[in-house]
Amino acid sequence: MINSNTAKLVKLSEDLKSGNRLALSKAITYVESTRPDHRKDSRAILDQIGTFNTSSLRIGLTGPPGVGKSTFIESLGLKLIEKGHKVAVLAIDPSSSMSGGSILGDKTRMELLSKNKNAFVRPSPNNCSLGGVTRGTQETIFLCEAAGFDVVLVETVGVGQSETMVSNLTDIFCLLIIPGSGDELQGVKRGIIELADLILINKADGDLVNLAEKTCSDYSNALNFMRSRDDAPNFPKARTISAKEDNGIIEVWQEILTLSDWRKKNSLFYERRREQMLICFDQEVQIFLNNKFSKSKDLFNRRKALEKQVLSNQLNPSTAAEILVNDLFSE
Amino acid sequence: MINSNTAKLVKLSEDLKSGNRLALSKAITYVESTRPDHRKDSRAILDQIGTFNTSSLRIGLTGPPGVGKSTFIESLGLKLIEKGHKVAVLAIDPSSSMSGGSILGDKTRMELLSKNKNAFVRPSPNNCSLGGVTRGTQETIFLCEAAGFDVVLVETVGVGQSETMVSNLTDIFCLLIIPGSGDELQGVKRGIIELADLILINKADGDLVNLAEKTCSDYSNALNFMRSRDDAPNFPKARTISAKEDNGIIEVWQEILTLSDWRKKNSLFYERRREQMLICFDQEVQIFLNNKFSKSKDLFNRRKALEKQVLSNQLNPSTAAEILVNDLFSE
Repeated sequence: MINSNTAKLVKLSEDLKSGNRLALSKAITYVESTRPDHRKDSRAILDQIGTFNTSSLRIGLTGPPGVGKSTFIESLGLKLIEKGHKVAVLAIDPSSSMSGGSILGDKTRMELLSKNKNAFVRPSPNNCSLGGVTRGTQETIFLCEAAGFDVVLVETVGVGQSETMVSNLTDIFCLLIIPGSGDELQGVKRGIIELADLILINKADGDLVNLAEKTCSDYSNALNFMRSRDDAPNFPKARTISAKEDNGIIEVWQEILTLSDWRKKNSLFYERRREQMLICFDQEVQIFLNNKFSKSKDLFNRRKALEKQVLSNQLNPSTAAEILVNDLFSE
Repeated sequence: MINSNTAKLVKLSEDLKSGNRLALSKAITYVESTRPDHRKDSRAILDQIGTFNTSSLRIGLTGPPGVGKSTFIESLGLKLIEKGHKVAVLAIDPSSSMSGGSILGDKTRMELLSKNKNAFVRPSPNNCSLGGVTRGTQETIFLCEAAGFDVVLVETVGVGQSETMVSNLTDIFCLLIIPGSGDELQGVKRGIIELADLILINKADGDLVNLAEKTCSDYSNALNFMRSRDDAPNFPKARTISAKEDNGIIEVWQEILTLSDWRKKNSLFYERRREQMLICFDQEVQIFLNNKFSKSKDLFNRRKALEKQVLSNQLNPSTAAEILVNDLFSE
């Protein structure tokens, strides 16, 4: 029984490495799962995959709702495929931690790209964890790379903590902005701008061209006043683009290559990836820890007693929590 | 030394209970702090405060950036103060986990309300934790209520997991929507709509009146197809409002009272608050647990060894995390 399962997973891993998309999808399902048997299986798959591909490029992308992230990814993705790349798109959506789906309906996203045989588009998973990034996102990136996808785009909506996590998963981080309104009005904070390598003012088309140029020069000026970054000389840069009209997209790719090549020459590229492995480790520790703790039978009775005290106003929740956690560590 | 500190905290608690705003601010600072001495002090303050006020009303408010949340709160808050209420406003902003502040500048928020002596406006704290809600948010609500604020508005930007947390902290939950665009385009997901008691289509003024009415009837129709809720008959409801022109605001307050009165009669109101205490307890447990675990000296060497294996690709981060956590629980 176990042997047939092992054989199945070896087969799945081989299929994945030969670029089979169905195998990739299946493997990702294991990696995202929290079921103990799936955890074991995903570990076996990752062991089969072996060492990680380092010739890939991981690009993070964030921006407020409605800025045109999908249109940008569709445009960039198709151009990269023309150049011979294989493109994977992972969407990280903190709001999908709920039942998901729009109530008033929504247009199809990345229609051409999702149908292209050299693209792999993975919608956001349903069970999100810390900061809106699922456990297993980094492993999903490994799997995509093992399946031959050499450009991995990781997209997230630009509000909340998820963009910090996405920047921790990627080599280059792009922020998309709508022409005109100030960044705070778009829900974009200074911290996010500090994470960004490229600030792209989208929708520089039709009536919005002038406003987009104005917004771009506002950002360029503002960036001059920010501290310069050791890991990105001459970056972050602000540029106008029109994803709808395919304008400036190839130039964005050139900027991405310029920066990643520079970082590779200075070994900053691989240093960053090493750091990311540790951040991922930390994050996984938190998830496993909370999971294990909440299921501990030893602590169950103690927890129930403390809950009673909280409900009868004898203890505030924070104090009760501190007592419970201290119990574990004083054993 | 300890006695003088105790006396100081007793004085602070007494000042707070008499409605002193400076004392309230100070107490909140203790509650939000993670410093061990501040943790002790905040516990002492909460003990002094005693049992929690149950005659207050806690209202959660969410919506996409730019929908006019501040304008709505200013309008509602000033009307409630006219009616004799004391209003506290707590802003929960997941993006402020970064260095905060807008790069291109932003307008002043809730100008009149923040100056009013019967209002207390607390901007978002800088150190956000799980889901963008700080540890201590529930305790901050308790403190505001102890200081005599009988309406507490908790605001969050409507993308991410923070609205789930805010709905777990409040009695009534309102979602603000911009006229026109579909909810997914605004970054609002079905799950959020299921949390909402009231869906308020703001900006029903000027040229947008007709579009707002249309959006409102779209939502009303859509809500008819959702499962009915036991805890809110005839709710969720959709309404148009204009926060800028003060239209429909008092009607929103009437709806809030109708629903909360009904829930009080059916004991659902206090049942929900009890559940919230336990959710808060769980959340605090996670925070303390991660904090304690990451600082454990016993686990330090084990963690370092595993980190090495992760960096040399011998272990993937997830497997390493599982091993580390299992070590703790097998002791």
